[in-house]
Amino acid sequence: MIDTLIGRLPAGRVITDPDVLDSYARDRTFLEPGKPLGAVLATSREDVVTTLKWATENRVPVVPRGGGTGLAGAATAMDGSIVLSLAKMTAIRELSPADEIAVVEPGVITADLDKAARRHGLMYAPDPSSYEISTIGGNLATNAGGLRCVKYGVTRDSALGLEVVLADGRVLNTGRRTMKGVTGYDLTGLFVGSEGTLGVITAATVRLRQAPKAPPATFAAEFGSLRDAGAAVSAIMAAGCQPSLMELLDRATLQAIDAMRNIGLEDATMAMLIGQSDASDSAAVVARMQELCEENGAAFVAVSSSPAETEELIGVRRMAYQAKERLGACLVEDVCVPRSLLPDMIEAIERAAAKHGVKICTVAHAGDGNLHPVFVFDHGIPEPPPEIWAAADEVFTQALALGGTLTGEHGVGLLKKRWLGLETGELGTEIHHGIKAVFDPLGILNPGKAI
Amino acid sequence: MIDTLIGRLPAGRVITDPDVLDSYARDRTFLEPGKPLGAVLATSREDVVTTLKWATENRVPVVPRGGGTGLAGAATAMDGSIVLSLAKMTAIRELSPADEIAVVEPGVITADLDKAARRHGLMYAPDPSSYEISTIGGNLATNAGGLRCVKYGVTRDSALGLEVVLADGRVLNTGRRTMKGVTGYDLTGLFVGSEGTLGVITAATVRLRQAPKAPPATFAAEFGSLRDAGAAVSAIMAAGCQPSLMELLDRATLQAIDAMRNIGLEDATMAMLIGQSDASDSAAVVARMQELCEENGAAFVAVSSSPAETEELIGVRRMAYQAKERLGACLVEDVCVPRSLLPDMIEAIERAAAKHGVKICTVAHAGDGNLHPVFVFDHGIPEPPPEIWAAADEVFTQALALGGTLTGEHGVGLLKKRWLGLETGELGTEIHHGIKAVFDPLGILNPGKAI
Ligand SMILES: Cc1cc2nc3c(=O)[nH]c(=O)nc-3n(C[C@H](O)[C@H](O)[C@H](O)COP(=O)(O)OP(=O)(O)OC[C@H]3O[C@@H](n4cnc5c(N)ncnc54)[C@H](O)[C@@H]3O)c2cc1C
Ligand SMILES: Cc1cc2nc3c(=O)[nH]c(=O)nc-3n(C[C@H](O)[C@H](O)[C@H](O)COP(=O)(O)OP(=O)(O)OC[C@H]3O[C@@H](n4cnc5c(N)ncnc54)[C@H](O)[C@@H]3O)c2cc1C
Repeated sequence: MIDTLIGRLPAGRVITDPDVLDSYARDRTFLEPGKPLGAVLATSREDVVTTLKWATENRVPVVPRGGGTGLAGAATAMDGSIVLSLAKMTAIRELSPADEIAVVEPGVITADLDKAARRHGLMYAPDPSSYEISTIGGNLATNAGGLRCVKYGVTRDSALGLEVVLADGRVLNTGRRTMKGVTGYDLTGLFVGSEGTLGVITAATVRLRQAPKAPPATFAAEFGSLRDAGAAVSAIMAAGCQPSLMELLDRATLQAIDAMRNIGLEDATMAMLIGQSDASDSAAVVARMQELCEENGAAFVAVSSSPAETEELIGVRRMAYQAKERLGACLVEDVCVPRSLLPDMIEAIERAAAKHGVKICTVAHAGDGNLHPVFVFDHGIPEPPPEIWAAADEVFTQALALGGTLTGEHGVGLLKKRWLGLETGELGTEIHHGIKAVFDPLGILNPGKAI
Repeated sequence: MIDTLIGRLPAGRVITDPDVLDSYARDRTFLEPGKPLGAVLATSREDVVTTLKWATENRVPVVPRGGGTGLAGAATAMDGSIVLSLAKMTAIRELSPADEIAVVEPGVITADLDKAARRHGLMYAPDPSSYEISTIGGNLATNAGGLRCVKYGVTRDSALGLEVVLADGRVLNTGRRTMKGVTGYDLTGLFVGSEGTLGVITAATVRLRQAPKAPPATFAAEFGSLRDAGAAVSAIMAAGCQPSLMELLDRATLQAIDAMRNIGLEDATMAMLIGQSDASDSAAVVARMQELCEENGAAFVAVSSSPAETEELIGVRRMAYQAKERLGACLVEDVCVPRSLLPDMIEAIERAAAKHGVKICTVAHAGDGNLHPVFVFDHGIPEPPPEIWAAADEVFTQALALGGTLTGEHGVGLLKKRWLGLETGELGTEIHHGIKAVFDPLGILNPGKAI
């Protein structure tokens, strides 16, 4: 069947070699993909239109794909599907310093857009930790967050307009290139975070921002208890310090990092808070944040305004994921709670770990109340054992009970679908499927994901 | 027919007196409403549910209504409809300084929420000029902007979660009370700006922000040309000054204000730019903005950090609408263009005015490229004469040609429906109606508006 698609596309667009194909079928989760018919490496909107028209005619499921760095199984391909990779559509079509916007293709690597903007004194704010390997299209489709979003918002806050190819191959333009606009419903917002289930993004108009003029200043504070660290976060936010980064690491994470590279972890250190200011008076702001940490019981606070030392302090945070992967296979979770309940959520995570005898290391985008408990299990086994799922279930239930959400930034994908109904409810689920049917009546776009 | 509704609601909820009813049937436009059957003054979610169930059973159109301050005819009632006023649902149910959120009923007056937040050192950022008479429900339904949104974003940027009653009376909860969250599609964003066509908002969880600690500083600069003023705006934004307000007034507006209250308008003054900073070093930032105005040709720049003088400078802007109303009846428009094209758009407005011999006074939220050309016509006549519509048509067409939008913040309502298709296109229109049908299959919610 795929031969008819190959015939319609320019030569060399479709991969069918099973080994290569397999790498296009998985994301960064442990999930084993099915066997797709092939992968289209689109280089233009026309390729996308052709692929979707063919898929509609033949009722073939299509799995859009950017960098494949997702942590929810949203880009995991199923048997008999076509993977539609946008990774080769990498043009930055326009970058307007005067209007502080860029028009980009979906395959542009997040960091590349930021670099291009910096040449004009601007920045592209959303910075998932994966920014050197994730794409703008994937960031939009997952509404990615990142370290800076405590100050600058998530991907949605930088998305102004989209060009989207619908399931039947028709091209829809949403939004605008202006800062404000209220014509019609917010379709741009609807596509952002929809995980490829409503349409395939082939271009985006995004907002850029003025890059900070001065170098940032940074602190790293060690706390003897999680409650104290949580109180320091609250105090810093309430003081209006507007940190440009505010990360919390629990002891289990610090131990993993210490084991990988000696950071001189003290026995009494239960949490580390790393914060940054990129304000014009960043050193003064960080001094104030240091004070607030000390007032809230920090045992030790390192502070720096030098770029090299800053890199070192932030480097501890950057090592977190890698350090955990050395401990075993990882189920990376992503709950988010009202900020003041951060310590309660961390305690709930620790209770779940103890009760089910599993290892959980937690880092948090603390300023947003967004926690990543990482459930570690044996490298040898193909997927998390029952006790991991039992602990995860407890973490999810507790997050919802605290007025939180299942996923702050990684998305639902396949991994969180089991719990989705608890958050969206019956009517919400019905509405979601109604909306899906408006855009994709045959249900061929990334079926089984997200909703 | 309405008797059965009256019977189902607690006593005193329904108005049927034609004179009183008429005031519930119109907004702030010149549009003559039809004759509704009655107006329900809801005091609880239950009242809303009862009304919508009855409306669904009887296929009666329902027009939701907040403060009735709209400028697009979105709350204009039609013959045989029911007006559903939320203005009496005024409880602030929760205000959490720790989490920087509030949970409010839809009838809360915008300024009242801001005042309540200020008691805790917080603020509710979105501040349409109507903030003392508009409601949070109306602000959400129109995605209202305001003066501060150049720095703090529009209403959408402060909306976290909603409780919405659908057309059939079922209650849907959207969003969350956390800062981030990507579970499911962005239904909150979909309701924001939907002008009462998808559901009736009965509660909202909104984000509060830290109020600035220091008093703001302000400048008012006079320019001999609009291009110069536009260049100053660009320079100020590019310098990263982050103004908390940035308003532009054209000569026609200044003349109207000068006629109402002598502001000593010079012959050579073609535009005035009023800007503010609420940063901790606001005086220094305003000094920098003053410099940039001068570098870009400002003839005179007044600067102040005293609250009284600041009020006086901003007061000029506040007088604009009232001053114009003294000139005649007003058609208030609301186009938005990429910021760098502000001078081009103003020139296009002036060309349209000259060509059709009509009076247009323009103020702009200049930092966002959002212009309000006000078309003035004789008080005596019921609606704008043909030459006004011809000029307006040219303004809309030109805004779209510049990559702009028909409406930056006021919405489409009835007034802009004629032009809507030019912006959303055929496929966009189809999608909008598809989404509408998911929420309101019988089409009873504010029919004929917005889409
Ligand atoms: C080390 C590491 C750190 C990470 N840190 C963060 C973080 O800080 N914050 C965060 O939010 N995430 C983070 N992630 C998760 C991941 O990087 C993000 O979800 C990212 O946005 C995915 O982008 P991608 O291009 O890899 O998309 P993919 O993984 O390829 O796809 C993700 C989803 O988007 C859809 N999609 C992709 N492109 C398109 C398109 N053009 N049109 C329509 N749908 C499309 C896919 O179908 C899928 O549903 C991290 C991942 C790793 C491995
Ligand atoms: C002097 C003046 C200055 C203004 N300045 C600004 C400004 O700076 N920025 C700006 O954006 N606007 C401005 N406006 C326009 C207007 O105030 C805004 O559109 C405002 O958001 C309307 O709020 P309202 O409560 O009056 O809503 P209404 O006018 O009553 O209704 C507006 C729309 O919202 C719907 N609606 C109301 N409540 C609900 C609800 N609970 N659920 C569902 N739908 C609902 C209505 O059906 C209608 O479609 C101004 C108006 C005036 C008169």
